[in-house]
Amino acid sequence: MAVAPMANPAMPFHPFSPSFPSNSSRLRWLNMTKPSFPVFSCSSAAFDEAPPALLRTEVSLSVGTHLIPHPAKVDKGGEDAFFVSNHNGGVIAVADGVSGWAERNINPAVFSQELMANASCLVGDVEGDPCLLLGKAHAATSSIGSATVIIAMLEKNGILKIANVGDCGLRVLRKGEIVLSSSPQEHYFDCPFQLSSESGGQTYEDAAVNILEVMEGDTIIMGSDGLFDNVFDQEIISTVSEFDGASEIAKALANLACKHSGDKDFESPYSLEARSQGYDVPLWKKILGMKLTGGKPDDITVIVARVVREG
Amino acid sequence: MAVAPMANPAMPFHPFSPSFPSNSSRLRWLNMTKPSFPVFSCSSAAFDEAPPALLRTEVSLSVGTHLIPHPAKVDKGGEDAFFVSNHNGGVIAVADGVSGWAERNINPAVFSQELMANASCLVGDVEGDPCLLLGKAHAATSSIGSATVIIAMLEKNGILKIANVGDCGLRVLRKGEIVLSSSPQEHYFDCPFQLSSESGGQTYEDAAVNILEVMEGDTIIMGSDGLFDNVFDQEIISTVSEFDGASEIAKALANLACKHSGDKDFESPYSLEARSQGYDVPLWKKILGMKLTGGKPDDITVIVARVVREG
Repeated sequence: MAVAPMANPAMPFHPFSPSFPSNSSRLRWLNMTKPSFPVFSCSSAAFDEAPPALLRTEVSLSVGTHLIPHPAKVDKGGEDAFFVSNHNGGVIAVADGVSGWAERNINPAVFSQELMANASCLVGDVEGDPCLLLGKAHAATSSIGSATVIIAMLEKNGILKIANVGDCGLRVLRKGEIVLSSSPQEHYFDCPFQLSSESGGQTYEDAAVNILEVMEGDTIIMGSDGLFDNVFDQEIISTVSEFDGASEIAKALANLACKHSGDKDFESPYSLEARSQGYDVPLWKKILGMKLTGGKPDDITVIVARVVREG
Repeated sequence: MAVAPMANPAMPFHPFSPSFPSNSSRLRWLNMTKPSFPVFSCSSAAFDEAPPALLRTEVSLSVGTHLIPHPAKVDKGGEDAFFVSNHNGGVIAVADGVSGWAERNINPAVFSQELMANASCLVGDVEGDPCLLLGKAHAATSSIGSATVIIAMLEKNGILKIANVGDCGLRVLRKGEIVLSSSPQEHYFDCPFQLSSESGGQTYEDAAVNILEVMEGDTIIMGSDGLFDNVFDQEIISTVSEFDGASEIAKALANLACKHSGDKDFESPYSLEARSQGYDVPLWKKILGMKLTGGKPDDITVIVARVVREG
């Protein structure tokens, strides 16, 4: 709220308490209970090795989101969770609750939701380090479950930092080409790296880290594996070129992923990967000329962020 | 992440620890330190009076955001903060740090940022009650400062609940008409209701509350006063009709507000309000036929949310 460019501007805040005494009755649990993390570097790169910022203009993110739950999970909204914040140049994040927990009567959505809520709460405490944010958010999450997760944080000077555990993904497009692509991490096919409530899962130290200097006009596509298992990079590129608005792109990509996910004949990235890993249809089907095809029904979350100049 | 529709799907989670022992080394501060609030109703309406849900389809929000900082505050990114989350049907929120704190060498952005971070963290703890969320987030905020704030939470059955303290705002558009408009609350011109670190400010109990059953296709426009002080409702309606995507609408509205804010001759909502409150140019200018006009330079945050059908 600005001071008005007018004669006699009124005091823009209410001067009830000119001496600003501390309000001792108010909880200050954020400060009291912040986990005390040492400074650390992640597995793939150290943030202090970030390239110097070359941009002179300040940049931030203009964001669009679209989520389509798994057809069988519509009533609960699926098991993906995301958040968007304007902290610093902007923060975007997706977590994908691991569905296998449902077999143990644990709602897989709860862990991913709490992880995202904690991450969004802690963005101001990590000095632009998404890997540290993963660590702190994981430590603060008390629900039972596990999730894959990706967080990208933009600094106003254009430095984009990404931390990724598992098979959520991110692409950065510049002038119709992909200039950065995250790589999924998995133990074996369909078992991704994941942050877990249990001690055997991965930690922030296992995160794949990328750092890139983005430019005005770049488009960041972030999603759960429901996007990247059903849509090829070339389709992402052509969809981005078709629409101007971030939310239009997000909606179009989510709809495309949804369409492919229900198409049993589609040669999806997922079915190609399955075949490349040795999975296939039974022999008798093979003899009949059938092969493993089809999209992958899943929760589909897409966040599209355009890098825009500030001011 | 779905179980794959394939032969021999691998276990979709990593079964490191089948007995799920509690990880006692992990902080559980969210549960440990939750402020214990009584159930309460807010000033304008009680949530238990919400109309019954008539929609049969589940709905959620497809969101676009755009923020343009005050021209003099670009280096710090302005003093507005926002977040978007997919919790339940979707949550959108904007806080606007009161700029007067800068006169006391306190960065006004810090309070609004922490307030939003805390609110985003606590969305899962308030059972869809944005007023309670305001109270909890305020209680958890330890920074010095104050902010106006608006939070809207959508339930999957279509019930949209809004809690508003101050002069951030919200409009719901249906088929080219505004069906809900928030009302700014202020002590006097340019001094809005605000949540403060000091004891004299407002509390969640002062929030104006609205409840509306939204429908697929409705468009929610949320913004800081930088939007509503510079753009008339009729311009919002026409802008929404011009674009399809939520982020395109957000960008167009923010750009329009920015253009008007720097136009000294524009009869803005802000200048009209100022004159209606008795503010005017000095007498000698009046004699020369001059009158109080112009937009209001400010941080401009716009969140646009389309109500979409799930699944």
